[in-house]
Formats: sequence, structure tokens, C-alpha cells
Amino acid sequence: MTSKIYQLVIVGYGGMGSYHAKLLKDVQNINVIGTFDIQEEKRVASLADGYKAYDSLADVLSDATVDFVLIATPNDVHKDIAIAALQAKKHVICEKPVTIKSNDLKEIMYVADANNRQFIVHQNRRWDEDFLTVKKIYDDNIIGNAFHFESRVQGANGIPGDWRHLKAQGGGMLLDWGVHLLDQLLFMVDSKISSVYSNLSFVLGDEVDDGFQSIITFENGITALIEVGTTNFIQLPRWYVKGTTGTAIINDWNLNGKIITQNFGVEIEAPKPIQAGKGLTKTMAPPSETAISISPLPSFDATMESFYSNVVSVVEGKAVPIVKNEEVLRVLRLIETIFVSAERNEVIKNFDSLIAIAE
Amino acid sequence: MTSKIYQLVIVGYGGMGSYHAKLLKDVQNINVIGTFDIQEEKRVASLADGYKAYDSLADVLSDATVDFVLIATPNDVHKDIAIAALQAKKHVICEKPVTIKSNDLKEIMYVADANNRQFIVHQNRRWDEDFLTVKKIYDDNIIGNAFHFESRVQGANGIPGDWRHLKAQGGGMLLDWGVHLLDQLLFMVDSKISSVYSNLSFVLGDEVDDGFQSIITFENGITALIEVGTTNFIQLPRWYVKGTTGTAIINDWNLNGKIITQNFGVEIEAPKPIQAGKGLTKTMAPPSETAISISPLPSFDATMESFYSNVVSVVEGKAVPIVKNEEVLRVLRLIETIFVSAERNEVIKNFDSLIAIAE
Repeated sequence: MTSKIYQLVIVGYGGMGSYHAKLLKDVQNINVIGTFDIQEEKRVASLADGYKAYDSLADVLSDATVDFVLIATPNDVHKDIAIAALQAKKHVICEKPVTIKSNDLKEIMYVADANNRQFIVHQNRRWDEDFLTVKKIYDDNIIGNAFHFESRVQGANGIPGDWRHLKAQGGGMLLDWGVHLLDQLLFMVDSKISSVYSNLSFVLGDEVDDGFQSIITFENGITALIEVGTTNFIQLPRWYVKGTTGTAIINDWNLNGKIITQNFGVEIEAPKPIQAGKGLTKTMAPPSETAISISPLPSFDATMESFYSNVVSVVEGKAVPIVKNEEVLRVLRLIETIFVSAERNEVIKNFDSLIAIAE
Repeated sequence: MTSKIYQLVIVGYGGMGSYHAKLLKDVQNINVIGTFDIQEEKRVASLADGYKAYDSLADVLSDATVDFVLIATPNDVHKDIAIAALQAKKHVICEKPVTIKSNDLKEIMYVADANNRQFIVHQNRRWDEDFLTVKKIYDDNIIGNAFHFESRVQGANGIPGDWRHLKAQGGGMLLDWGVHLLDQLLFMVDSKISSVYSNLSFVLGDEVDDGFQSIITFENGITALIEVGTTNFIQLPRWYVKGTTGTAIINDWNLNGKIITQNFGVEIEAPKPIQAGKGLTKTMAPPSETAISISPLPSFDATMESFYSNVVSVVEGKAVPIVKNEEVLRVLRLIETIFVSAERNEVIKNFDSLIAIAE
């Protein structure tokens, strides 16, 4: 028995839409049959790339051959397109951030259930190799109990010159990149959040944030510093992780990095005080060579089903989604909490407990 | 006219006391004539180093030849020794943190005034070359308006094996290293503090903190992340500074680092999207080569009078102290505020305004 080939239409054929088209060339049981975009130049690009350009969303939804709608529009119209597509009995794949407000995602989830169709958000960075490496370090206690995570992406190009500048369209870096870093953190750490503190950066003078720093504390004691910047001409490492017996660093997306762990059961020479600036320090002196071991980063588990393969498995009832809507909802609510924390300059506590009460 | 040679006794001849003795060999108008320490081994060390070992503090204070008492004991006894020395009409140089509680410093300041003697705290890291380089970058707008400072010291040796483990003696890293980093920040940034948020780290299971992360916001918009760690097997850079037109990094006490600034008035090629993990990004792509300039760190101003020279100038009425007691008091109150913020897990606002009301 050959498996079914699913027909997919991309709505929104900009940077991400065309990127999905390229990715889907390698996916055997999904076939991109066309696109819809409100901009004429995007329709021209679609035809040039060999994809039919639908005249309207209605035309896409009334096309009975279409199994999947993939939404890669600006964020503010995800919801209306998703609900219309689900009501037309299409499965939906949606770019992140799925919606600007968490309650809009709840509505979509309700409509998906009511129409018995799948709605799955493209939180693709759960598959990033740097993240999977950190997750491996955490899951396998490679540096003891990892208790502090610093996850940063820093660029120097400002906010891209498109709708990401605009509040009404769901612009800003917390929604654009923050959603990835927060999604990775919550996917990895299985604990309730006990407190959130955040600022937002408005260096560029846009109406939306051009970056942020958030400190998140979990009930199990884990802390995280999550940071996005777009005015950073020098980059700090992508990941910095502290554990009870060592530290891990991943400098970049090419997995440059290392692990240093403490040696046990050997005679350890005490560190020698060093001259540091105008003072002496033993506390901040490098450990003696016998005290530590340097290791390369571990290989990560590559067994997690790929995003699109999982989407097909879910539609065929063979698997549960790797990106669960309840998880995406929690991340959106965390983002809403970060906005509140930054606006009030206050620590917001018991975020997860408050959610449970609100449900 | 030859200038007077001042006679100085060091009280507390441990690591810092003997370090001062070495430093003072190069100071022409201060002469170390002896030490006092309650431990026999320190008295033996003092004699071996060629310094008279006084039998008691009373003997030091009743010795009319003594002009200066330098206090390098554990932190909890600074106050009693300082007050006794000032009442005996000695000038006093005191190690940091000057006292554990800010009100104790206020008492000392009162006694110094009443006895018309100088009391000066050895905040030596105002002269650190890395700090003076950052201060130069800030003062001269080398990266535009510098608006965000990250100042870190990270070691892997835990808390040193002495009284720094003990709460009653003023142990812990916030008091030991935090006092330097906070003093540098407040010495550089001339603005009231609008909010403080901090955690404390207790990874080692001591009764005192083994590190902390604090986010400090100033009324002029400047933000700072101040961090001390003693369980960091890999070190992040000593300084990371963001400005409106560039970024500066200083990796270590040897002044390895660089500045990258934005180019203006040239035709700038847009950055090209890069593959980053499982996604494309233009936002986080490196800027094109025409867009930025890389520069070495600037030379810092070396015109600030040295610590001991300033102490002598102050005693002779020729200069005001570079380390002013009001500044040291403000840093101690900031430390007290950080303890409160961490204990409550809350943002403390209007710290400077609250102080003004309390005065």
C-alpha cells in the first residue's frame, strides 16, 4: 500500500512561505500545489517558482483537492485564515507566533476540534541542533544537574524592514524570536514557572520592542536568562549553561562550543591567586589543570521525527503532535506575562498557577 | 621642604594585609612600621617580612608615632577597630566591604568627623584598567550613548576557604566581589537608580551567597546586568557594553577585547539571510562588511591620582577623596536592597529616592 500524497497550499508567499516551499520539496508525502498572496509580486514569484497562484483565499478553500493550508502571512491574520481553513475541513500548519493573543489560539483550537481537523504550529526551532545539544546535556546530566540556562540571539541589523515593525501586525522581537527561545525552554524544562521578570528594549525607536532580557524561575529551582537583541554589534554565545558539576557553552549555530567539568576523586591542586586589575584574587583564578576536564559538545539525539513527517503521522492518527497546541498556548501566555512584567517593571509570580485558575 | 613620611600599621595580616604591605613598598610617603593580628602564625609572618608585630590593638593605638591604621581583618570587626582608631586620632584606611550594614558606616563617618580624622575605604577596583577602559568608552561616547552594561566576574573555585563562608563575618560573594562591581557602576553612571532586581545563588550549600545576578535600571535609561559567580567552569566576558552606535567587549583582565561600530554615510549592502538551525534569519545574519568597523579598545585616562597618593593628599588637605564615604554608603545600601530584592523575589523601585527620604 502506497501512502497518500497530501496536497498543500501556502498562504502568504513571502520569505517564510517560499522557504516552506523549498523545504517541502524534500517531503515525500506532501505536495505543494499552489500559493495565495494578496501582493501581485508574490503571485508572480509563485508562478516563476512553478506554483499555481490562487486568486483568493476562497478559491483555495473551495478547492476539494487541497488537504493542507500552510499559513505564512503576517501574524495578525493567522487567526482568521486558520479558522476559515479549518471550517473548510482543511488541516492547517501555521507559522509562529501563531497568534498575538493567547485567547485567539484558544478559539482556533476550539474550531479545529469542532471540525475534526489538525492545527499544528511550526515551532521549527525545537529541531535546531544547538537546542537539541543543550537538551541532551540537560537530559543526560552531562554537567550534573543543569540549573541555569542563558539563551541568546543577538543581531546587529535592527528589526527587518517589513510588518515586523508594526504593533498591529504582531511585530517586535519578543513575538518573532522570543517565541522560539521560550518555546525551547518550556519544551525542555518540565516544571511550573514560579516567576518572570523582563524588560523590553526600544533602542531603535520603533513602536514594537527590538529585543528583551527575561529572567524566568521554575519551581524546580532552574533559572533562565532569555535574551533577544537586534542592536548587538558583537554577539555573546548562543547558549551558556551551568550545572552542578560543570559548564557548557555553545557559541553559534555551527555548534562551536565546549564543556568543562570538575574532576572528582583526584588530588586537586589549589588554585593560585592571580593579579586581576588592581587586586589579587584566588576566587577568580583559573582552576588548576588537575581540577577540570575539557570535553567537546555531545552528539544530540536525532531520533525525534521531523516536523512535516510528524504532521502527516498526526493526520493519519499514528502519532501525537510534537508541537502540542497546549504547549504553544502556554508560551503565548508567558509572552503576555513578559509584556506585563516589562510594562510594570515588576516580577510576575506563579504564572502557571494563575493560568490554571483562569482555565 | 621634604614632605612628611606617614607611619602606618596594618591590622589583620592575612592575604589582603600582606598584599597592602607589598603595595606600600612603592609608596614613598607612607612607611609600614608594623602589624597586629590575633593569630600567632600571622605575627610570625609579619616578623619574617620585617614588620614589628604589635601585641594588641591598644598597643597600636597608644603608639604616638602611628599616623595611619590600615584595616584588613574579616568584615565584621572593621567597625569597632575603625572607631577605636579614629578616637585615638589615627587616620584609617579600610578594606572593603567597609561594613556589613550601611548604618555602621554612618557611625564610623560620624566618629571620623568628630575626631577630625580621615576614613577612606580601599575601593581599589576603581583603578582597574578594564574598568577605566569601559569608563573611557562611556565618557567619550565611543559607541554612541552607552546604554547597557554587563559586568561579570566568574570563577570556578567556589567561595575561598576562610571567613568568607560565614554570614556573621560578612561572607558571601555579593559583599566580597559585588561591592567592587557595584562601586564601579555607580562611580561611572551619574544618575539615580530607579529599580533593582536580583537573585542570589546558593549552589554550594553555604549559608552565604556564592554569586548573584542583578539588573539595575537608572533614571537616565541606562541598564546594567551585574553578575558574580564562583561555580562557572567557563567564563563569559568581563564586560559587554551596548551603545547607540556600537558594542564593546572586554574579555578579561588582560584587556583582550574589541569595539564594533556602525558605519554611517556609506552605501550599505543589506545583510543576506543565513541558515540558522532549522530556519532562515535575516535579523540575526552578520552585517555586511561595509556596514561595520572593528576597532581596538581605546587607551584609558591614566591621570586619576593613585589610591595611596590620594589618601596622603586628602590628609594634607590638598585633594578630596576619590573614594568618597557617601559613595561607599550608597553602594552598601544598594547591596542591602539587592538582599531584599532576592529574598522577596521582587523589583525594588526608587532606591535612591527612598534613601533621600530616610536621611
